[in-house]
Amino acid sequence: MRVQVAIIGSGPAGLFLGQILSRAGIHTVIIEQRSKDYVLGRIRAGVLEQGTVDLLNEIGVNQRMNAEGMYHDGIELCFNGARHRIDLKALSGGKRVMVYGQTEVTHDLMDAREAAGYETVYEAQNVSVHDFDTDHPKVRYMKDGVAHEVECDVIAGCDGFHGVCRASVPQDAVQTYERVYPFGWLGILSDTPPVSDELIYSNHERGFALCSMRSATRSRYYVQCSLDDKVEQWSDEAFWNELRLRLDDEAAERLVTGPSIEKSIAPLRSFVAEPMRFGRLFLAGDAAHIVPPTGAKGLNLAVADVRYLSQALLQFFDGDAHGIDTYSQKCLQRVWKAERFSWWMTSLMHKFPENGAFGHKIQQAELAYLIGSEAASTSLAENYVGLPFEA
Amino acid sequence: MRVQVAIIGSGPAGLFLGQILSRAGIHTVIIEQRSKDYVLGRIRAGVLEQGTVDLLNEIGVNQRMNAEGMYHDGIELCFNGARHRIDLKALSGGKRVMVYGQTEVTHDLMDAREAAGYETVYEAQNVSVHDFDTDHPKVRYMKDGVAHEVECDVIAGCDGFHGVCRASVPQDAVQTYERVYPFGWLGILSDTPPVSDELIYSNHERGFALCSMRSATRSRYYVQCSLDDKVEQWSDEAFWNELRLRLDDEAAERLVTGPSIEKSIAPLRSFVAEPMRFGRLFLAGDAAHIVPPTGAKGLNLAVADVRYLSQALLQFFDGDAHGIDTYSQKCLQRVWKAERFSWWMTSLMHKFPENGAFGHKIQQAELAYLIGSEAASTSLAENYVGLPFEA
Repeated sequence: MRVQVAIIGSGPAGLFLGQILSRAGIHTVIIEQRSKDYVLGRIRAGVLEQGTVDLLNEIGVNQRMNAEGMYHDGIELCFNGARHRIDLKALSGGKRVMVYGQTEVTHDLMDAREAAGYETVYEAQNVSVHDFDTDHPKVRYMKDGVAHEVECDVIAGCDGFHGVCRASVPQDAVQTYERVYPFGWLGILSDTPPVSDELIYSNHERGFALCSMRSATRSRYYVQCSLDDKVEQWSDEAFWNELRLRLDDEAAERLVTGPSIEKSIAPLRSFVAEPMRFGRLFLAGDAAHIVPPTGAKGLNLAVADVRYLSQALLQFFDGDAHGIDTYSQKCLQRVWKAERFSWWMTSLMHKFPENGAFGHKIQQAELAYLIGSEAASTSLAENYVGLPFEA
Repeated sequence: MRVQVAIIGSGPAGLFLGQILSRAGIHTVIIEQRSKDYVLGRIRAGVLEQGTVDLLNEIGVNQRMNAEGMYHDGIELCFNGARHRIDLKALSGGKRVMVYGQTEVTHDLMDAREAAGYETVYEAQNVSVHDFDTDHPKVRYMKDGVAHEVECDVIAGCDGFHGVCRASVPQDAVQTYERVYPFGWLGILSDTPPVSDELIYSNHERGFALCSMRSATRSRYYVQCSLDDKVEQWSDEAFWNELRLRLDDEAAERLVTGPSIEKSIAPLRSFVAEPMRFGRLFLAGDAAHIVPPTGAKGLNLAVADVRYLSQALLQFFDGDAHGIDTYSQKCLQRVWKAERFSWWMTSLMHKFPENGAFGHKIQQAELAYLIGSEAASTSLAENYVGLPFEA
């Protein structure tokens, strides 16, 4: 097979990129090692920045999102027994975020790709990338016992943190930066009405908690847990009890509980690989960077990468290499700001025993300052809704 | 001797308090264990918030300050080889800071106290505070071999971090919070013109540097150093060379060097003791809290304490205990916000080897965000010029 762009990975980054490029007449294939059902079964983020919503509208994958997505004009910060609202819309000059699950975005993009007849290979085994330091890179994989080779002009590495693309780059060509946090998030998905119309981020002496949602009847809740915890140790009842303890009295009383339909523990990590381009191989999304979920930047950052990468590749196939030459630098500026914000919000909201009583008081002081200062609230809001894109 | 308020310590907190109370007809004495010359010889901060300038104007200790003090409308942040100005005045709605040395403030306040004939005891030995859990507290000290006892209504503990007042409170009545930073500041005072009209705070891979000044002909420079360093290891030449390396090229070239007239290493510490009132004993300034010098909050925070304490005591002698009952809580709200700011600015600007390459990149991202975001710049500015006082 010969294509212009071989996209490795059928998560949001790969699907967004595929949709944009294919619609523009670029010949693409998406090669995914997992099955379609597996990809769709992953529970991930649920908050879209306006820029992500805009892109879904631009590429016409928006019918269900516009029908079912819920705009949120604010978030609530809970600490010291009380909730305080951050009016994102008022503070950011009218910007908002939309609650619409990453799973749904993935589903919609897969449907659109299928409907348009663009090619995707699922369950590709032993995927490997080759010759991206030449003008003729290749992707090889096995499928149903048969070896395949895809010749292409460009490989897009959208295959996540554990993917093959970044791992195929010579080690001395990549610089990585990492922080692993000393706790995880225990998350529950349940078909119960959300405790609040807006997300609640709670800083509590027992640990962080987050009340979020996927719809008016489906809730997603998290509590900070130990990295040593196992999901099996947490009964639904134990989870609900712990969550309730970390909320203010009013929210705790209003909380509707029910059986979990998914329950998992995720570690929290900050990670960046530099650069994001290696010859004809371009990384996008989690393949290049991970943020802790506090602040909901992961998916949106992947989409921002794809925005820049798709522009760069369209230019490239038009004979102009400027976009691909500046892709890495342009992305990384935005990436690091989102890393900074996610790190900051994680640091502000979680319990860090190693920071001691002083660290806890500093958090309380920062939260008190934050809700009382228009400048500080605006800074939070402009990051939460998404910083502006570069031209 | 019998007075209404016995003030322990003749630093800025004690002197400000003495001046305000004495002018209002309250009988005070200041008891200081050091000599006047020793106190005046201490080199300390040099940046006054508008609130501190206002208070000096209110109490009429302002002639020399208004003649010699220099208003600064901004500061410069230096990182990644370039300087970026934060326009404090424009961002804070017209507020500024004044460069006028703490030594000069102390001098002016001592002169004013002497001229008015208010009493100060210098070189008081074995100072001790007693019975502040009753209505009749006492201060005892030795002077020239003679034992003295001062009866009073109130003791004001303005005797600094190592003073006797906080140390005299039962241990279980005080909660302390502390962070000691893993580096110090090596500072030089020199009779050379400052390298810039405004302060330069530099984040450099070799470590933090600060260019400040006391006047148009006297400079005060600092470089972050190891806690193991000894002043004797640092020749003037070594200091200037190190400072130059941590500035941008233009500033480095403009730097005028000369012999140091003072050179010292100071550790950096964040510390808060709660509460700040114990019966008839009130703590103010460094006796209750320490901030690292980044952000110039130490002196200004002491003055803010004294503003609240003097109001409370005037009310108290007028028969109203509300002010003294709320003093601690009111102060601590402001204290913790200043602690938060000083900790943040210290964290942002210094080299922390234990935070690794990720921590360094986060600093760079925060600085890049800070200078590019009006909200973030405003947040810095409003803290730097001093947050508003509570009514």
